[in-house]
Amino acid sequence: MSNEKKELTQLADIGEFGLIEKLTKDISIKNKSTVKGIGDDAAVLDYDQKEMVVTTDFLIEGVHFDMVYTPLKHLGYKAVTVNISDVYAMNAIPKQVTVSIALSNRFSLEAIETLYEGIKMACEHYNVDLIGGDTVSSVTGLTISVTALGEVEKGKAVLRSTAKPGNLVCVTGDLGAAYAGLQILKREKEVYLVNPNSQPDMSGYDYVLERQLKPECRKDVIEGLKKNGIVPTAMIDISDGLSSEILHICKQSGTGVKLFEDKIPVDVQTMMVAEELNLDTTLLAMNGGEDYELLFTIAASDENKINEIEGVSVIGEILEDKKELKLYGRGEGSTTIQAQGWNAYKK
Amino acid sequence: MSNEKKELTQLADIGEFGLIEKLTKDISIKNKSTVKGIGDDAAVLDYDQKEMVVTTDFLIEGVHFDMVYTPLKHLGYKAVTVNISDVYAMNAIPKQVTVSIALSNRFSLEAIETLYEGIKMACEHYNVDLIGGDTVSSVTGLTISVTALGEVEKGKAVLRSTAKPGNLVCVTGDLGAAYAGLQILKREKEVYLVNPNSQPDMSGYDYVLERQLKPECRKDVIEGLKKNGIVPTAMIDISDGLSSEILHICKQSGTGVKLFEDKIPVDVQTMMVAEELNLDTTLLAMNGGEDYELLFTIAASDENKINEIEGVSVIGEILEDKKELKLYGRGEGSTTIQAQGWNAYKK
Repeated sequence: MSNEKKELTQLADIGEFGLIEKLTKDISIKNKSTVKGIGDDAAVLDYDQKEMVVTTDFLIEGVHFDMVYTPLKHLGYKAVTVNISDVYAMNAIPKQVTVSIALSNRFSLEAIETLYEGIKMACEHYNVDLIGGDTVSSVTGLTISVTALGEVEKGKAVLRSTAKPGNLVCVTGDLGAAYAGLQILKREKEVYLVNPNSQPDMSGYDYVLERQLKPECRKDVIEGLKKNGIVPTAMIDISDGLSSEILHICKQSGTGVKLFEDKIPVDVQTMMVAEELNLDTTLLAMNGGEDYELLFTIAASDENKINEIEGVSVIGEILEDKKELKLYGRGEGSTTIQAQGWNAYKK
Repeated sequence: MSNEKKELTQLADIGEFGLIEKLTKDISIKNKSTVKGIGDDAAVLDYDQKEMVVTTDFLIEGVHFDMVYTPLKHLGYKAVTVNISDVYAMNAIPKQVTVSIALSNRFSLEAIETLYEGIKMACEHYNVDLIGGDTVSSVTGLTISVTALGEVEKGKAVLRSTAKPGNLVCVTGDLGAAYAGLQILKREKEVYLVNPNSQPDMSGYDYVLERQLKPECRKDVIEGLKKNGIVPTAMIDISDGLSSEILHICKQSGTGVKLFEDKIPVDVQTMMVAEELNLDTTLLAMNGGEDYELLFTIAASDENKINEIEGVSVIGEILEDKKELKLYGRGEGSTTIQAQGWNAYKK
């Protein structure tokens, strides 16, 4: 590298979102088929009668997963699922994926075949075709890069930037369980490191562990919305946590929001784990991440219709004042919603 | 991982092509928009009037590039270019790319901005839109994953599997220079490691170094083919070396081939480096790789037309007998073409 004299900026100081913003701020669109580029769950491309969405994600050993407690088949399944989740979050139907893997010599053919079993299972389950990829060696560890492609009727892609004041804020399923599951896995790893002969006791944690190790996308809700004639005004999937995602919607839509703590859906097992590990349940639900549930906004007039769809909770309302970003607690008073996001560059 | 009792297969024993074959052999296509899945430079998708091609590639530090002699701007440029090359190899026009990068704390914001400068330069040069990606932290090193999307008129995508006996084999530009450049860079690295104060002397190697560090795609040839009304019968880009690529065409087309050593285009500077480093020029041209030139076959009746296009050499002919895979030397006699491919899992 060149002999740089001036002070360099550490990645830890600007974080993931800051980095992306810096890198992409001056990117302009040249091709007419590019409807929407960077800045949503997926890009949108125009192909005559249809639009196509494209999204991509990395999974890195030691950052996104730990081989000590991640079965390879689950990992393959999750790698596909988290990308497909972004396609659904555009209101599109996933159709194809490419999967690239970089792996070191320490993996055997049989290990990679197990990983691929999971990849193929997810493709089967979500009816997508595995159409390509790249298989290369790495110096250390396992890296997986997945790109997912989907289709949506022209003009029906749902962006993050189109929420309107008065819209209702909805979330699918329950939140915080995947993070709770991760804490249990980490605890068991500690036990294992101290005593490798110990047998992990995972009974009573089945739901939170499954949420962490084998998340599913809300294909059913996308179908339910269609069936009930609801087109969300804005949508995003929850990968970094509810706080972070609702702030994305508000920032991009130029709106505020109020959420109600007592409306946020949390599973009983998640609450039990929170209590056991002395974690705050609401914090866990707001910032846990990896839920792969959908967060979306609808016109207030769709309130009755949304109740027809199983697994959807109305948790708040979009506000006009973009400085108003509040979570109303169970008691009196409210707090300002803050994005934890992640900043993996911070030690 | 599970307690495996049986003997496991080492990746080094089956190599890259063997691994890909094993992993993808039972993949079937479920969606009608998937025209062609795994097995070519890119997948082909049907979008009404147009077809779309999708391709993806990994670049891994320590495997595909060495930070000691790879300027970040060049690396960004190359990461995009090698993917776009696959799009051209389908006879398609590149339109969009996604770029994901995984990087460790050791990189500064300024370093990544330099990498992105190269990425954007390539997008500008080839008129493609950067539409998305993922930026994550890694434990060590830099990994880049690029996916490129392109468009082609319906039915005009050129596959590897459609060469016919009697077709002429054509190659663009010259071969072996990128590999020659890499050998020079490796030699200078050795010198540098022995004496870090030494100034590298790169004069006289400008062409081979540029071919290694900043390869370009043959957009001009794709345009020339179109202008002259030639549709290749089969096409592939040269990333692993001429030997490996012509064997892909023959295997997938069910044909043989004869190539003529004296027709294979090699630049004078490549020959000089070969002599200096005591390497065989033909071996270098046949197996060097990273040329990103196009290898294609045309109907014999197009021979006159192909001579109109600058930078194309006719180097041989497709044969009916699929066991006949020969390189005819300058003297008498011939040798059987063998894929070196790469097998990075072998130490």
